[in-house]
Amino acid sequence: MVIELIGLVAFAASGALAAVRAKLDLFGVVVLGLTTALGGGIIRDVLLGIHPPTTLRSWPYLLTAAVTGVAVFFFHPQVARLRRAVLLADAVGLGVFVTAGTTTALQNHVPAYTACLIGMTVGIGGGAIRDVLLREIPMVLRKEIYAVAALAGAVVVPIAAWLGLPDVWGTVLGSALVVAIRLIALWRHWNAPVPRAGGTAAS
Amino acid sequence: MVIELIGLVAFAASGALAAVRAKLDLFGVVVLGLTTALGGGIIRDVLLGIHPPTTLRSWPYLLTAAVTGVAVFFFHPQVARLRRAVLLADAVGLGVFVTAGTTTALQNHVPAYTACLIGMTVGIGGGAIRDVLLREIPMVLRKEIYAVAALAGAVVVPIAAWLGLPDVWGTVLGSALVVAIRLIALWRHWNAPVPRAGGTAAS
Amino acid sequence: MVIELIGLVAFAASGALAAVRAKLDLFGVVVLGLTTALGGGIIRDVLLGIHPPTTLRSWPYLLTAAVTGVAVFFFHPQVARLRRAVLLADAVGLGVFVTAGTTTALQNHVPAYTACLIGMTVGIGGGAIRDVLLREIPMVLRKEIYAVAALAGAVVVPIAAWLGLPDVWGTVLGSALVVAIRLIALWRHWNAPVPRAGGTAAS
Repeated sequence: MVIELIGLVAFAASGALAAVRAKLDLFGVVVLGLTTALGGGIIRDVLLGIHPPTTLRSWPYLLTAAVTGVAVFFFHPQVARLRRAVLLADAVGLGVFVTAGTTTALQNHVPAYTACLIGMTVGIGGGAIRDVLLREIPMVLRKEIYAVAALAGAVVVPIAAWLGLPDVWGTVLGSALVVAIRLIALWRHWNAPVPRAGGTAAS
Repeated sequence: MVIELIGLVAFAASGALAAVRAKLDLFGVVVLGLTTALGGGIIRDVLLGIHPPTTLRSWPYLLTAAVTGVAVFFFHPQVARLRRAVLLADAVGLGVFVTAGTTTALQNHVPAYTACLIGMTVGIGGGAIRDVLLREIPMVLRKEIYAVAALAGAVVVPIAAWLGLPDVWGTVLGSALVVAIRLIALWRHWNAPVPRAGGTAAS
Repeated sequence: MVIELIGLVAFAASGALAAVRAKLDLFGVVVLGLTTALGGGIIRDVLLGIHPPTTLRSWPYLLTAAVTGVAVFFFHPQVARLRRAVLLADAVGLGVFVTAGTTTALQNHVPAYTACLIGMTVGIGGGAIRDVLLREIPMVLRKEIYAVAALAGAVVVPIAAWLGLPDVWGTVLGSALVVAIRLIALWRHWNAPVPRAGGTAAS
């Protein structure tokens, strides 16, 4: 639960930072933070037929994402300086979102590969919407390792279930794998030239 | 009902005018008019699990929006000259769409804040799709007062219901608030420089 | 079934070729191929309330689209040279997708005009998503004859049903009409200047 909120904050911050860079006003920054943080979950619930989407019915989620957006609007220079912390939080968020999405999909009795696709979408969907709204080609289409990490984490969940492990194991192991892949990718490319100055938190 | 059609016509005209400016052909203009007018309602029904979306099943809606698109294609210089009338119609449309969307959501037994979010989305969703299709950053993210007006109107609906007023009061009071905020905003910025020449009807 | 896979391959190739032109990496190319091939069907199922979308549950579809994306990534110069074959396959795919979409919608007891709109969306939706993700104004909004062909093919399906013909007749006649309109359009504009060098398979 706490760890899910970390992911939510990281994703909201990622969207809000991108909106600040695009020079949107306060409202635009908050809306883009909300969209990035909640978008993946909304797509998941629409695909699975859960009405209305869980994230729109959960006020702690909405409030957390909105407060994050407001905070980023006022303190974005400080937030941008915490680059490594934001990237770590984003990796944790990706892991938690992907594994939770895959678990929810499996509980709705879909085939394992469908569940993995939906779980991956939960992790990468919000960021894709963020980039489309800001007229960018979605980062996830251009940075291979982000989506590959999401897919790898998703695949762990049905394997853990198939091995008879409790749900929490799939979540923990899958999330850990996502975080490990993301950190290794960031580490190895640490000095590599990046195509765009000031890559977003979700990059 | 009549007032709902006014909103529909205003939104369809807003989408069709934007398409004319982007030099789309007749079909593109009609499709963009339809998308702008019906998009918010489709999002609402997908989120609430109403299948298939009401707006796709209502031929008077479809016909009205399509005829508006065709008319704008042929008479767009005249329509563009009616700028104040289009802006007023758009404000009425926003009010009606937002309050009707919030009412529908409440009838589907969602929490009040979820209903307000969905109602706001009905009002601003069509315009956001229009802008994304035309490769613009959605106007609603850049013009604060548009979405704030939508949210304010949405909030009136559950308050009116909580006070025990009949549904129609929420619709009328909420719509009036939206129109008032929009007109005041337009009035006060009347001489302010606008970032883009020929702001669209939904701006 | 075989003919449906031809359409799927053509649409996946269309998305993957566009991604290659936008210089996406392998993963981006595969994802865009999948999105273009499966997007229309996902929209259909979301609008009709079929959860989770059929195309996400059908591994032969997923595998075919993914393999097509990988193949295009490695052999795109050869694929691009097969321009006429790709255009023909795309026309067949459009016809099959549109008529199958309309048939599915009719089986879900929606009015005939709603079914036609949904069928048209199945045919053009994937390409529209492809173009939005690549920051293009959707081709279908700019090339009139593509969407008109889709709509004409869709209308054949309920007419055939109304005449008491078996379903397969609507599919065959509707698809044939789509292919005929597309080929005539391509033939007549064969020497006409095209606005963009190297029009995509879906253009």
